[in-house]
Amino acid sequence: MERAFVDWLRRRLPTHPLLRLGPGDDAAVLSLAGRSDCVITVDLLSDGVDFNLKEIDPRRAGRKCLAVNLSDLAAMAAEPLAGVVALCLPRSDAYDLAVALYEGFLPLAERYRLAIAGGDTNTWDGLLVVSITLIGVIGPRGPLCRGGATPGDRILVTGAFGGSLLGRHLDFEPRVGEALKLHNEYGLHAGIDVSDSLALDLWRMMTASGCGAVINAAAVPIAPAAGQLAALREDGVTPLEHALTDGEDFELLLAAPEDEARRLVAAQPLDVPITDIGEFTSEPGLWLLEPDGTRRPLQPCGWEH
Amino acid sequence: MERAFVDWLRRRLPTHPLLRLGPGDDAAVLSLAGRSDCVITVDLLSDGVDFNLKEIDPRRAGRKCLAVNLSDLAAMAAEPLAGVVALCLPRSDAYDLAVALYEGFLPLAERYRLAIAGGDTNTWDGLLVVSITLIGVIGPRGPLCRGGATPGDRILVTGAFGGSLLGRHLDFEPRVGEALKLHNEYGLHAGIDVSDSLALDLWRMMTASGCGAVINAAAVPIAPAAGQLAALREDGVTPLEHALTDGEDFELLLAAPEDEARRLVAAQPLDVPITDIGEFTSEPGLWLLEPDGTRRPLQPCGWEH
Repeated sequence: MERAFVDWLRRRLPTHPLLRLGPGDDAAVLSLAGRSDCVITVDLLSDGVDFNLKEIDPRRAGRKCLAVNLSDLAAMAAEPLAGVVALCLPRSDAYDLAVALYEGFLPLAERYRLAIAGGDTNTWDGLLVVSITLIGVIGPRGPLCRGGATPGDRILVTGAFGGSLLGRHLDFEPRVGEALKLHNEYGLHAGIDVSDSLALDLWRMMTASGCGAVINAAAVPIAPAAGQLAALREDGVTPLEHALTDGEDFELLLAAPEDEARRLVAAQPLDVPITDIGEFTSEPGLWLLEPDGTRRPLQPCGWEH
Repeated sequence: MERAFVDWLRRRLPTHPLLRLGPGDDAAVLSLAGRSDCVITVDLLSDGVDFNLKEIDPRRAGRKCLAVNLSDLAAMAAEPLAGVVALCLPRSDAYDLAVALYEGFLPLAERYRLAIAGGDTNTWDGLLVVSITLIGVIGPRGPLCRGGATPGDRILVTGAFGGSLLGRHLDFEPRVGEALKLHNEYGLHAGIDVSDSLALDLWRMMTASGCGAVINAAAVPIAPAAGQLAALREDGVTPLEHALTDGEDFELLLAAPEDEARRLVAAQPLDVPITDIGEFTSEPGLWLLEPDGTRRPLQPCGWEH
């Protein structure tokens, strides 16, 4: 539903002199106070969809809500500045839950020097809903958008993929510092954070860029949790398939010209590994190149909101 | 619950160099991009609490969600710049509902030259939740805060109060232009928008200002709807009591020194009437002065989130 609605919205929303980049990327870019360097993003998470308060400590849920938003700023290579938090709390337990959520937000806010500027707190008969809006600032290189990949660019990723559901989706570290460093020091063409799945977010990136992409199956870094989930479920879904379609990895997916990609992968400038997993192509479509050399179309499956 | 939680939050939130004004007012004031003129506010509204989708057109609900947020910018005398919208939509009807909500937002956004910068759209099994964050800019006089009233200041209000539930709470016009004009042209000391009730929001204003207040009962402008609601309910609640405690009037409540207040009331510079309804006092407490000269304590009743 979200894809169709965003399409409608892009057609329907009027242009505005303040909007450098409107809906459709990980965050919007605004010209505020006469400068063109503000990024704004909002993410809404809810109990039963993005976490389950029957199973986890609300502090972990709170941390995830803020981390997901920080990951959107990372995807734009923006430095976090400030945020506001809106809560819709179940009436029975409102105060304690609100406090626990903030106990999840605050250490992360401190770590990323984010000012929590305010909020709105409501109670109702429904389940918990948390909506966080963050403002960030972009550096002299401008925002890292998803639509800048060109054929021949390499597909790079941080970290490993799959099985995030076993816990990493709650406790992941948003790649804020990593994105800033890479965007400042290397000639990246495009970037996105993998929220909905490697296949789906790569599909979004190549579609926004007007090109195709081939993933080299043997090169995809598979998280140990992807193997654990495959073993646990015994449903025939392989660890690679989990890595390609699970989502909520919150790693960076980047496009870089071949020479920059080679330099970057050789240098490994981050604490987390960077892997070259394939190539953007002029030929349209999303493809998976198997180890035996055969190529098959890859469906952009993942989390659809 | 909200009051206790905001108290906790103010104690717990660390100071931050960007935050000129943190939680507790109608909006926060941020020093962005090296300038101190950005205001940010968030309001979350939900089905069954702030509107009832079984009874009204979702376009009206959408309009209200944005208008409530614009009213918060008005309360700070800030000019609207941009906003982001997060939706949590019931799965059954998500696309059509999202479109209808935006059809409610967009005419109002256009009227106030607000850029809708982006959003987040989710579906779930619960009822509709709408969270809107707005960014505004404040003029050379700075923000109009709630804590600036001093004893001797007159209490001024725009418009009339009570019975908003009969329809005005959906279709009110946020006092954006009015607040900007008054703040620019008159020496106002403080301001708030009446969201939760005249009595409760006045109590907030006087508490933030460290003073008391006396409302002159005979001077309170009572909306026709307050009388209609009293007649409809036949529960002994008078139209004046509705005016004092109903809430969702979204009128401006202002503090101005006596001479400015006199000048303002005489000039009537707005399309909506401005009325002097009483005085801020050095004596603490919130009081109602009856027409017979007796004075009784007024409970700050209203909508508690």
